[in-house]
Amino acid sequence: MLDPVLARIDADLPQAIQRLLALLRIPSISTDRIHAPDCEAAADWLVQDLTDMGFRAEKHPTTGRPMVVGTAGEGRRHLLFYGHYDVQPVDPLALWDRPPFLPEVQDTAEGKVIRGRGAADDKGQLMTFVEACRAWIAVHHKLPGRITMFFEGEEESGSPSLIPFMEAHKDLLRADLALICDTDLFDRDTPAVTTMLRGLLGEEVIITGPRMDLHSGMYGGAAMNPARVLARIISALHDENGRVTVPDFYDGVEELSPELRAQWDGLGFDQTSFLRDVGLSIPAGESGRGVLESIWARPTCEVNGLSSGYAGEGFKTVLPSKAMAKISFRLVGQQVPHRIREAFRAMVRSMVPPDCQVEFKEHGASPASVMATNDPAFEMARQALSDEWPRAAAFTGSGGSIPVAGYFKTILGMDSMLIGFGNDDDLIHSPNEKYDVRSFHKGMRSWARILAALA
Amino acid sequence: MLDPVLARIDADLPQAIQRLLALLRIPSISTDRIHAPDCEAAADWLVQDLTDMGFRAEKHPTTGRPMVVGTAGEGRRHLLFYGHYDVQPVDPLALWDRPPFLPEVQDTAEGKVIRGRGAADDKGQLMTFVEACRAWIAVHHKLPGRITMFFEGEEESGSPSLIPFMEAHKDLLRADLALICDTDLFDRDTPAVTTMLRGLLGEEVIITGPRMDLHSGMYGGAAMNPARVLARIISALHDENGRVTVPDFYDGVEELSPELRAQWDGLGFDQTSFLRDVGLSIPAGESGRGVLESIWARPTCEVNGLSSGYAGEGFKTVLPSKAMAKISFRLVGQQVPHRIREAFRAMVRSMVPPDCQVEFKEHGASPASVMATNDPAFEMARQALSDEWPRAAAFTGSGGSIPVAGYFKTILGMDSMLIGFGNDDDLIHSPNEKYDVRSFHKGMRSWARILAALA
Repeated sequence: MLDPVLARIDADLPQAIQRLLALLRIPSISTDRIHAPDCEAAADWLVQDLTDMGFRAEKHPTTGRPMVVGTAGEGRRHLLFYGHYDVQPVDPLALWDRPPFLPEVQDTAEGKVIRGRGAADDKGQLMTFVEACRAWIAVHHKLPGRITMFFEGEEESGSPSLIPFMEAHKDLLRADLALICDTDLFDRDTPAVTTMLRGLLGEEVIITGPRMDLHSGMYGGAAMNPARVLARIISALHDENGRVTVPDFYDGVEELSPELRAQWDGLGFDQTSFLRDVGLSIPAGESGRGVLESIWARPTCEVNGLSSGYAGEGFKTVLPSKAMAKISFRLVGQQVPHRIREAFRAMVRSMVPPDCQVEFKEHGASPASVMATNDPAFEMARQALSDEWPRAAAFTGSGGSIPVAGYFKTILGMDSMLIGFGNDDDLIHSPNEKYDVRSFHKGMRSWARILAALA
Repeated sequence: MLDPVLARIDADLPQAIQRLLALLRIPSISTDRIHAPDCEAAADWLVQDLTDMGFRAEKHPTTGRPMVVGTAGEGRRHLLFYGHYDVQPVDPLALWDRPPFLPEVQDTAEGKVIRGRGAADDKGQLMTFVEACRAWIAVHHKLPGRITMFFEGEEESGSPSLIPFMEAHKDLLRADLALICDTDLFDRDTPAVTTMLRGLLGEEVIITGPRMDLHSGMYGGAAMNPARVLARIISALHDENGRVTVPDFYDGVEELSPELRAQWDGLGFDQTSFLRDVGLSIPAGESGRGVLESIWARPTCEVNGLSSGYAGEGFKTVLPSKAMAKISFRLVGQQVPHRIREAFRAMVRSMVPPDCQVEFKEHGASPASVMATNDPAFEMARQALSDEWPRAAAFTGSGGSIPVAGYFKTILGMDSMLIGFGNDDDLIHSPNEKYDVRSFHKGMRSWARILAALA
């Protein structure tokens, strides 16, 4: 079943590239209202393409840019594929080597690339899956299973319509498993299935001392300085081993399984160069844990912002009334965001002296997403990826959050399999974005293999 | 000698008020170029008034507003009197009950006041001394001693010409003692001679971790967060008793003499209401030391500003590259600013982890001014003030710095006696500024007594 599909993908590559170039020529920037008609055009293009392939496909209006949903095929396991057709703005235009919406295939020292806005994020990635389906239909006259395509047009604008649309179209979108193609390879030769996404708890702490800014000469030594109080609180949030000191913070945090640890060790991650790229040399997480484990599988507490008193040019001898910190926690495993929020706030309150007040602001609370990798589909997908690429695939984590995966879980009850073929030099969100033809080609072949295995 | 002078002051009060009103009608705002001619006019008015009294007086141009210097009299002790004829801007004009430069005498529940911009700061205060001299000359046909008047026109603009002018006119300005009238009474009934001014050392600390801002999801747990480092440094600057932990910080800090402590205890300072006025209730200085001692006679370390990462509305999951604090030390006694700077920087450097860099910026370094109160002139002035006012005068401190007193010491080698008659409800720098007629009247009488004692 699979081999003729792979052969078809190989033979059809030039036409597949032409189709991607056609989609890339549509300047579907979602953040700029002037490009709203272009977003409509991109959605129309996708609806037409899916319809031509035999999907029942429709454009769904929202208060912003439209959603595209198409369904086809029959089978035991229903798969939902997610991608987004909107792209980032192109500023600064002067830094582009060619017009961002006149894409072309270019030869480079690292091989052929498709150059243009959206090539990697996310039109090229999205089309790897569409092309895999097209090849399957061309060879077998039907899909290997039941597939729903779901394309969003507001991902680069914070997805304002995503939750309402999911809530309103649960029956249309609910499937057994979601496939999301908006991530990178682990490295050029090593594919990955992202199965752990850290959650995020954001808090803002405002300490008030005196009720107005004071003259530090007149009051210094008499009045409580809230910046000192805040500094004491922040410095108490970690112990000398880099562990977070909020009570019961590590409840629900599990150690890596030996299998997963072995997979990660096998990735040959170079933490020295990872840190060197940002000007550092020493892992700053919990003692005794490597960088990969720290960013994929361990929770953190970070200061994201500080402000107090006068911070402009020169100097003002102000004794500030207020001091503010934005603090976030990355969460893993079964950590419960609202319990950590309460424990954090109780700890802060206990450190605020009687003469100061503390105020908190919430800035989001989402738990970690941990996919049920005991579902055999995950191991099958990993095997399928390993068959295509030079090195074996791994189940990896992601330090950041990918909100759509969380929404699939909380609104539709689905786990997500995040598989993508980007490279870290793709310049997404930057001038001269590109997608390797190799990523595009092997991406299509990867999805063909995964469809054969899963559907 | 003195009594007829006091009688003359009493009799001449209505005319003295008219002269002050004339000076107040000149809108000599130094911060606004459009009022430069008004500053010239105020300087000319003073030169003319001094000349009429028999001074050899001259207007000295600078690159900004002119200085006025006048000399008269003969005597063993040469006194230099300093005041400033420039005034603060008047915005917001809508909050004034009458035009700020159409001053008048008003009856209030607390007695008669002179209402108008500059009434208290500093034209009214300046004229208390001029009028005392005028009365002396009227009665005795000469001054009781040698007096140089020195009036500045840029005090409200940071005195940019003051140091160069002093450097260039040392012989003209050097005297045995400076008298400065730009401060307040301790309270309505208690005059003060300020004899201790705290010094100031300003430092800016910038900690750099990663060489650019990072995504806190991608790097949180791997990369060193400079805001955490900065918080640890700030919280280490004080021990649990509120003492500054910079090594050798207290070198040169002396305990109050029993005499001075007795004077201060006698002031009946209400630290509860002092703190309550700014929304506080607990003295925040060193354990076991009262508020007055803490702000007048003890050194401090305060955070004046903090900045790191994203501090605007909402939230950004940034792991900051840099964290900045502006930190100042108020200095007393014989503390040596540059030694404290070095000790502070060494302490900070010792707390910066190997993966971070620290950068320092200087923001001034001035030692404390401690007047040689063993010069009998100080005790004589204190006695003279005590004779005039309901309660005995005290030698007091000032938490802030009064730069001109420092320059008199460092450039001209003179101690300063800071004596003023303002009240804390005079609304200086604010709409509806006023000066009590009682302050003006008893201020003139106070100077007459001090001149009798000193000159």
